Amino acid sequence: MADADVFRHVPLPTAEIQRMEAYLGPLADSVRALVDATIRTSLDAGGVERARAEIDAITARLRESQEPGPAGVRYNSEGYSWQWGNAAVGLRNAVAPPLTVWTDEDGRLRGRADLGNAYEAPPGMAHGGVLALLLDHLMGVTASTGNVKRPSFTGTLTLRYMRATMLGPVQLEGWIDHRQGRKTIVRARVGDAEGPTAEAEGVFITPRWAVEPPVTPF
Amino acid sequence: MADADVFRHVPLPTAEIQRMEAYLGPLADSVRALVDATIRTSLDAGGVERARAEIDAITARLRESQEPGPAGVRYNSEGYSWQWGNAAVGLRNAVAPPLTVWTDEDGRLRGRADLGNAYEAPPGMAHGGVLALLLDHLMGVTASTGNVKRPSFTGTLTLRYMRATMLGPVQLEGWIDHRQGRKTIVRARVGDAEGPTAEAEGVFITPRWAVEPPVTPF
Repeated sequence: MADADVFRHVPLPTAEIQRMEAYLGPLADSVRALVDATIRTSLDAGGVERARAEIDAITARLRESQEPGPAGVRYNSEGYSWQWGNAAVGLRNAVAPPLTVWTDEDGRLRGRADLGNAYEAPPGMAHGGVLALLLDHLMGVTASTGNVKRPSFTGTLTLRYMRATMLGPVQLEGWIDHRQGRKTIVRARVGDAEGPTAEAEGVFITPRWAVEPPVTPF
Repeated sequence: MADADVFRHVPLPTAEIQRMEAYLGPLADSVRALVDATIRTSLDAGGVERARAEIDAITARLRESQEPGPAGVRYNSEGYSWQWGNAAVGLRNAVAPPLTVWTDEDGRLRGRADLGNAYEAPPGMAHGGVLALLLDHLMGVTASTGNVKRPSFTGTLTLRYMRATMLGPVQLEGWIDHRQGRKTIVRARVGDAEGPTAEAEGVFITPRWAVEPPVTPF
């Protein structure tokens, strides 16, 4: 896939993008509720079949006009960028809880998400792998903080689970431990209503091309 | 939440459960397609609003009769058990890709999943955290292999990402490195069409109550 497909300039003002977000976000929220109802419904075969036929008809209509591939990253000429399909934070992605991330007054990255029934693994508890997804995402953002022109990729990620995490609201925080050349060592933790449940350390790597000017070999 | 709610016996024969799976699985598949269309549609505000109203109506109908909480684990008297809401493998969970897991002839656990547009993070690539979710799940199953009566929980999980993973089909394999008391050390890797992309080591812990008989203190 060419970079141009997934990293694309959109010639629209930020106000117009935000107007679209105002109706596209609620669509994903409605699909999130449908995902939950799909897990929990006790309707019989006939009721489920009817729901499925109606869902297929809606999907077909949404597909009458659609982007050819993944949502990728989009940006406009005002410095606004968005990644609506992101698996952790995507506004339009019903797979994403979604995670919300912001920088707190103390400079730490904070995040929160509401983990509903779709994020279960030990019965009644949050899937440890879902927590890994949220931590990985928050830590990647943390690694790029204050240095948005140095993209970074997860090199290694070590997670330590202290106890099971209840389904429901979770909070995250992440901070840079130290930098070492092109490596940024990030630490983070996640917790539920009763306190911390898992902590993580990650090594994020900025690719060579992002920090060195191209060298002409003569 | 009481264990009874999430770990429940269901007085139905396996054949009846499988008859339900035959119509409940396709419902989740249809919701997965809707999730994809929700990310990609270019319909205008009116078209999106109409889709949303219809989705809300379907959700309301599915909810007319539904389980009160998460899907948990269910089992019957024939030794069949199921976890339809699991975030990685759940038959009824449209958040799950789903991951399919089986034991190969060589005794290793294998898994596969098709990561569509909903699992994106680096533009056009699979989210590293989604790979962590799949690896964590496969490794947990690996740790319990041949010992289903010894449940195990993820203690630590270390992931090493070697390169970005393309969206599309991914393959996983996991095996037990060694056991040490109540700890099981599991290794695993995941790859896309071009080969391995990440590897993992996990320490899975069997709780004390699962290996020791209750002690009467007198």
